[in-house]
Amino acid sequence: MNKTRLEAFSDGVIAIIITIMVLELKVPHGTEFATLKPLLPVFLSYVLSFVYLAIYWNNHHHMLHACHKVTGPILWANLHLLFWLSLIPFTTGWMGENHFAELPTALYGVVLLMAAIAYFILQGRLIAAQGKDSLLRRAVGKDWKGKLSPVLYVIAILVAFNSHWASKAIYVFVALMWLVPDQRIERALARTEA
Amino acid sequence: MNKTRLEAFSDGVIAIIITIMVLELKVPHGTEFATLKPLLPVFLSYVLSFVYLAIYWNNHHHMLHACHKVTGPILWANLHLLFWLSLIPFTTGWMGENHFAELPTALYGVVLLMAAIAYFILQGRLIAAQGKDSLLRRAVGKDWKGKLSPVLYVIAILVAFNSHWASKAIYVFVALMWLVPDQRIERALARTEA
Amino acid sequence: MNKTRLEAFSDGVIAIIITIMVLELKVPHGTEFATLKPLLPVFLSYVLSFVYLAIYWNNHHHMLHACHKVTGPILWANLHLLFWLSLIPFTTGWMGENHFAELPTALYGVVLLMAAIAYFILQGRLIAAQGKDSLLRRAVGKDWKGKLSPVLYVIAILVAFNSHWASKAIYVFVALMWLVPDQRIERALARTEA
Amino acid sequence: MNKTRLEAFSDGVIAIIITIMVLELKVPHGTEFATLKPLLPVFLSYVLSFVYLAIYWNNHHHMLHACHKVTGPILWANLHLLFWLSLIPFTTGWMGENHFAELPTALYGVVLLMAAIAYFILQGRLIAAQGKDSLLRRAVGKDWKGKLSPVLYVIAILVAFNSHWASKAIYVFVALMWLVPDQRIERALARTEA
Repeated sequence: MNKTRLEAFSDGVIAIIITIMVLELKVPHGTEFATLKPLLPVFLSYVLSFVYLAIYWNNHHHMLHACHKVTGPILWANLHLLFWLSLIPFTTGWMGENHFAELPTALYGVVLLMAAIAYFILQGRLIAAQGKDSLLRRAVGKDWKGKLSPVLYVIAILVAFNSHWASKAIYVFVALMWLVPDQRIERALARTEA
Repeated sequence: MNKTRLEAFSDGVIAIIITIMVLELKVPHGTEFATLKPLLPVFLSYVLSFVYLAIYWNNHHHMLHACHKVTGPILWANLHLLFWLSLIPFTTGWMGENHFAELPTALYGVVLLMAAIAYFILQGRLIAAQGKDSLLRRAVGKDWKGKLSPVLYVIAILVAFNSHWASKAIYVFVALMWLVPDQRIERALARTEA
Repeated sequence: MNKTRLEAFSDGVIAIIITIMVLELKVPHGTEFATLKPLLPVFLSYVLSFVYLAIYWNNHHHMLHACHKVTGPILWANLHLLFWLSLIPFTTGWMGENHFAELPTALYGVVLLMAAIAYFILQGRLIAAQGKDSLLRRAVGKDWKGKLSPVLYVIAILVAFNSHWASKAIYVFVALMWLVPDQRIERALARTEA
Repeated sequence: MNKTRLEAFSDGVIAIIITIMVLELKVPHGTEFATLKPLLPVFLSYVLSFVYLAIYWNNHHHMLHACHKVTGPILWANLHLLFWLSLIPFTTGWMGENHFAELPTALYGVVLLMAAIAYFILQGRLIAAQGKDSLLRRAVGKDWKGKLSPVLYVIAILVAFNSHWASKAIYVFVALMWLVPDQRIERALARTEA
């Protein structure tokens, strides 16, 4: 089974999710600086979610690049990931419009948590399909980022009801942690080719 | 004629349909748990339709994987399928917003029925184009799932006016029936390669 | 320069246009049969435009299949075509919501006319790039359909202000005329391979 | 790392941005010529932004065509460009709806400026990755258009608060300047092949 179509479909869905989010930035009716002010939290939420989706696309790209075999369960694990990612525009919009509220901030974390779990499942399925000594297995290694992120999301969700600023800070921290490019796979590839 | 572009276009349309559906989950204005409650049926309808579209994408992927020849009528049979799939966001939204209503539940089934028929026609066209002893023909076999689904949809449509819960149960049942991965084509491919 | 990306981008834009149109089918608030009735003209306009866009995608697919060379001006001629196609959701929505009105019916034809002209320009550019004895040139031949359509659109636009039904009939007629699959290119390809 | 998926994702995002913009052209409720009149500035803004996005797609296409190597930082530089392009529908809608206002006109320029800077960064990263004597480096050459555009955008932004017409004229001028096809890369490619 070829992975090209899996990649193409995932690219399509992520591209649409990332672009649909911008529709929450509704064109204001006035033309003063003041009319832009209430859009600022919506805009910042958009930036954060854009970065998250970009990280997912980037890591997805790297992960599949190191794969050769795609099976039926992998297709479903991938669709499961896309399902949770597809809810990000909703939670982004809700958090953006209610920037001092606890529940939207917590729900934002819940969707991130579920997406992280879905990614973890997909990664496991891919490693299983490539065989024990696969490039991907070595590249992923101990995967401390992948294991730390869900823990941080859970903390952020719990903390949200006390201080939504603290959980927002955690979301930004996790994003920054992943922004440092995931060079494990690139390095493993380079070693193989050398 | 190459099937790449047919696959790419179908991927694009299905990816957009699946993502546009999420726009029906409108960002609520309050920030209490209570404001999420009316969204629950909309969310559950979204999950159901996401699963249906994922099944279509998955089976479409498998079916075309087993094909080599694409003809003019196949392009049209595929567009016909995409047409009915494109109406799923509308029926999903209508059923989700009116979760105790009969007509939206019945209409949801009508669109599923038409999509199933369109898929059946496309499959027939593809088998015809691949030749009598094609891999696809052997893989599809008796196609009891493909034949049972429309019958169940018709029952669900008729039943909707008495008990919309019964028809919803049927929709969920059909989805679960298909979720069991369609290993016929994978098995047939494996046998060929062996 | 490779034509793959031109095809992929056109597929993407056409797939999105076709799917965005369905957003004009707004979920009604009631659940009676009566609430669907005002949606009927919107739905029929959607069907007509879906068929038109499907025809464009299909012919675009065939035309580029017969091409090998893509130049800078071809990219722009293609973008010009996509521009006019991108206005179809707007004219479809306007005509669908005002099904007894002359101006929306005429404007629908204006956009179809401009798209037909843009297609004609693209076709000319492609033929010019492939060389005098190209497969595409022979396949297109006298192109009576391509020449008749704009004439019919102009008639439909003029007639709209007297009888919008007559122009709608012309739009349906042109669509049916093209629905007969364009076998010129398939035949020419078959001859070459024979 | 393969550039195919980078191209496919960028195509997807740009295709969606270009098509989502048309949603700002909201279907009017009346059917008179007069109801179209307030849409004219919205339409003209759409045309201008369509041309800008088409130019970006075109140049992106040419630039990547001349590349062989794609690295992690290039993926991020590309996502950075897509981020700014994704804001164009918002600024287009705001400028279109408030066609006599200064701030929306200035903000339109700010987003264009940021996109131009992002493109410049991406180009630099790509040249760096291809090596000193790369085709791309020679093709880009002195890049006076790429250096002049940001300067013109800055002027347009500053001028907007005195005369928004003057800044609009500058935006149109920059678009026309780029519309002249960027034959540097095509020429360089032709020379290499000769």
